[in-house]
Amino acid sequence: MTTQQLTDQIKIKKSFLCIGLDVDLTKIPPHLLELEDPIFEFNKAIIDATHDLCVSYKPNTAFYEAYGIKGWQALQKTINYINSNYPEIFTIADAKRGDIGNTSTMYAKAFFEDLNFDSVTVAPYMGKDSVEPFLAFNNKHTIMLALTSNEGAFDFQTLETNGIELYKQVLKTSKTWKNSQNLMYVVGATKAEYFAEIRKIVPDSFLLVPGVGAQGGNLQEVCQFGMNSTIGLLINSSRGIIYASNGLNFAQKAREESLKIQTKMRQIMINWTQSKIGN
Amino acid sequence: MTTQQLTDQIKIKKSFLCIGLDVDLTKIPPHLLELEDPIFEFNKAIIDATHDLCVSYKPNTAFYEAYGIKGWQALQKTINYINSNYPEIFTIADAKRGDIGNTSTMYAKAFFEDLNFDSVTVAPYMGKDSVEPFLAFNNKHTIMLALTSNEGAFDFQTLETNGIELYKQVLKTSKTWKNSQNLMYVVGATKAEYFAEIRKIVPDSFLLVPGVGAQGGNLQEVCQFGMNSTIGLLINSSRGIIYASNGLNFAQKAREESLKIQTKMRQIMINWTQSKIGN
Repeated sequence: MTTQQLTDQIKIKKSFLCIGLDVDLTKIPPHLLELEDPIFEFNKAIIDATHDLCVSYKPNTAFYEAYGIKGWQALQKTINYINSNYPEIFTIADAKRGDIGNTSTMYAKAFFEDLNFDSVTVAPYMGKDSVEPFLAFNNKHTIMLALTSNEGAFDFQTLETNGIELYKQVLKTSKTWKNSQNLMYVVGATKAEYFAEIRKIVPDSFLLVPGVGAQGGNLQEVCQFGMNSTIGLLINSSRGIIYASNGLNFAQKAREESLKIQTKMRQIMINWTQSKIGN
Repeated sequence: MTTQQLTDQIKIKKSFLCIGLDVDLTKIPPHLLELEDPIFEFNKAIIDATHDLCVSYKPNTAFYEAYGIKGWQALQKTINYINSNYPEIFTIADAKRGDIGNTSTMYAKAFFEDLNFDSVTVAPYMGKDSVEPFLAFNNKHTIMLALTSNEGAFDFQTLETNGIELYKQVLKTSKTWKNSQNLMYVVGATKAEYFAEIRKIVPDSFLLVPGVGAQGGNLQEVCQFGMNSTIGLLINSSRGIIYASNGLNFAQKAREESLKIQTKMRQIMINWTQSKIGN
């Protein structure tokens, strides 16, 4: 999927919601556990109930790997189901990979070719030659960790280096890499004011934003500081949506939670358009 | 496996060699491709031919994930084969994972419980709460990236922060984490003099050292600066050993290459013991 196609979907759906498919067998409705592949059945129901309210799904690969071969099969069935039934959806493998050149190429093939995801998340610590192999794929997107939403983000990401915080240095340096137009960035929503600084460095890039909802970030503030002329945001919510209920009505409840967020996004987009016309 | 058991194995085998099982179907002997599971058959032959000359095997998970379900099955069969036949071997899942708390716990379960590896490699960028979930497992080891051996290591790892390079800050900070005694570190062999500095910060920790051989590091120099009183090093070689030949004799050739390295290690350990007695 191209960036333009993603932007078009955001405009059509009036939504920049990404739903995190972090499936934990201890949290899904118990009646699903009797089925042959509870993880896939859970995902399928959630996807069918929410696909018109979001533009992206993001399975975190850890939750699938934790169940070994069966988990990997469930991941494969999930991505195939999305690609077959809802090809307009932007898919993210939240894998946070990063390794040296030839190994990164293997990871890129695994996620972009074997599983056919539109994008994958990567870690920046190993630098240029750990990320560029991902960037070499046309119309595939590499979403690099910049500033995360967890407590440990302040251990290293915000340390000052060359007079600026490390995460800003990561953003700046990454712009010099080959095919850097294929980069997006993970930016946590815990402190909305960071977005203003980040937009000075990467005004045009898409930002994937976890931490709205369960982790405490505020949608309105993130949009105020983080939106650009093509929206440029994917706001992720996982637990707040997929675990809204663990009863028989779980998919309907997930839809209701998604609709609440999409309604807010719709209003934000309308206000934003009006303010542009007003100016 | 405990650290003491690993140290004992090093003394018994007179080896601190780790063999990287980075299996690429385009590089293994063509005659194996006719078998049902070429990756596992390749690993099995390499392991049977070299297990007495090394103390550790390190499959890089990227190479297995690249082949989807089949790759994951081959990884599972490989670790089961090692654990069943050579339980004295220290196993490393080279996965370079790192995610927020509950997700890291899922990864830890995947590698420590489901696959039963002794250790897993992790990335430090997300800080304390991305690594501590791994450290909570008894007699399991978390090998964190500190200074890697690739070109991109100089993008961020060697940037100065708080007056010291980032990788030194990573080492220092990680020592304050809960159960930090379960930490080991990845330190590339490209510049041996770095080891002297690193040993000032983590004198007692095991260091996993890639980059001796194919990536250009020198075994003698790394040992000179990096060894501690219990050796404290695992030197990894992948391609130089496993792809020594792609003929019918590939396992025998892998053994010969392993023996060359083990012979050097044996001599280094003898010299080191004599110098201790001499002092």
